[in-house]
Amino acid sequence: MLSIRPAQADDISAVLGLIRELAEFEKLEVKNSEEVLLRDGFGASPKFRVLIAEWDGQLAGYAFFFPFYSTFAGPGMFLEDLFVRSQFRGKNIGSRLLSNVAAIAVGEGCVAMRWQVLDWNQPAIDFYKELDADFLDEWRTVSLSGEPLRRAAGGAA
Amino acid sequence: MLSIRPAQADDISAVLGLIRELAEFEKLEVKNSEEVLLRDGFGASPKFRVLIAEWDGQLAGYAFFFPFYSTFAGPGMFLEDLFVRSQFRGKNIGSRLLSNVAAIAVGEGCVAMRWQVLDWNQPAIDFYKELDADFLDEWRTVSLSGEPLRRAAGGAA
Repeated sequence: MLSIRPAQADDISAVLGLIRELAEFEKLEVKNSEEVLLRDGFGASPKFRVLIAEWDGQLAGYAFFFPFYSTFAGPGMFLEDLFVRSQFRGKNIGSRLLSNVAAIAVGEGCVAMRWQVLDWNQPAIDFYKELDADFLDEWRTVSLSGEPLRRAAGGAA
Repeated sequence: MLSIRPAQADDISAVLGLIRELAEFEKLEVKNSEEVLLRDGFGASPKFRVLIAEWDGQLAGYAFFFPFYSTFAGPGMFLEDLFVRSQFRGKNIGSRLLSNVAAIAVGEGCVAMRWQVLDWNQPAIDFYKELDADFLDEWRTVSLSGEPLRRAAGGAA
């Protein structure tokens, strides 16, 4: 039996555990901490929201999202993470999490949802195709951090 | 002579004009309006910020940005648009706009900036490489809007 609810501050340790499981699956590194997630997600103006999925009371997955803005189209919702723990897959939990985020987005006047998927994650890609999502494959994502970010900031007027 | 300043509500018509010039360059369509941009950018809790670049008092370009959040790394700044009008290129204006956004991002504790570039826009790609930016080419961008978004929202718990 599935239940989906917004994460509260005292879920943050569980959420970080799920983030670490996702990072392991994606072969990426987690540098974030409980402290920073608490500060950024549960203060006066939260920078993100999290939905938690439980299956028979056990932690099964999460969705992590925040607004973005398309200059061409208007307000949207960015789904940063959608994750279901391996032992809970095949129960439609990812789809229900995504639907709940979509319902929040539509309810708040968003014209689109956007997210990213690793190009080798074929099960996820197939799932998104079933939703009739568009793949914006002309766009490359660029990231600037660390010393190159500080150097760029140093050139400000 | 270059000056860079935050856009105000009464710049919105000029900003939408620049957005339309960018869309023409990118061969994309603008569905947004002055009304919606005013509502979303200049109300009680703005969904985005805009920097305007002027060259000898003439409108030369803009940067359009808002926060994002990396679960793995922490808070970041997303640069949705960076645009310099064709007659003002070659004056380092894009670089100065990007530096100003980077300085705001660093000043606000962001660990990264992120943006996207069309894969055929080689001058932009070369510019980003000079900044030592990373290209996250394993990631595909997915978008859900219109009827498929409403259908997904209909499956909420």
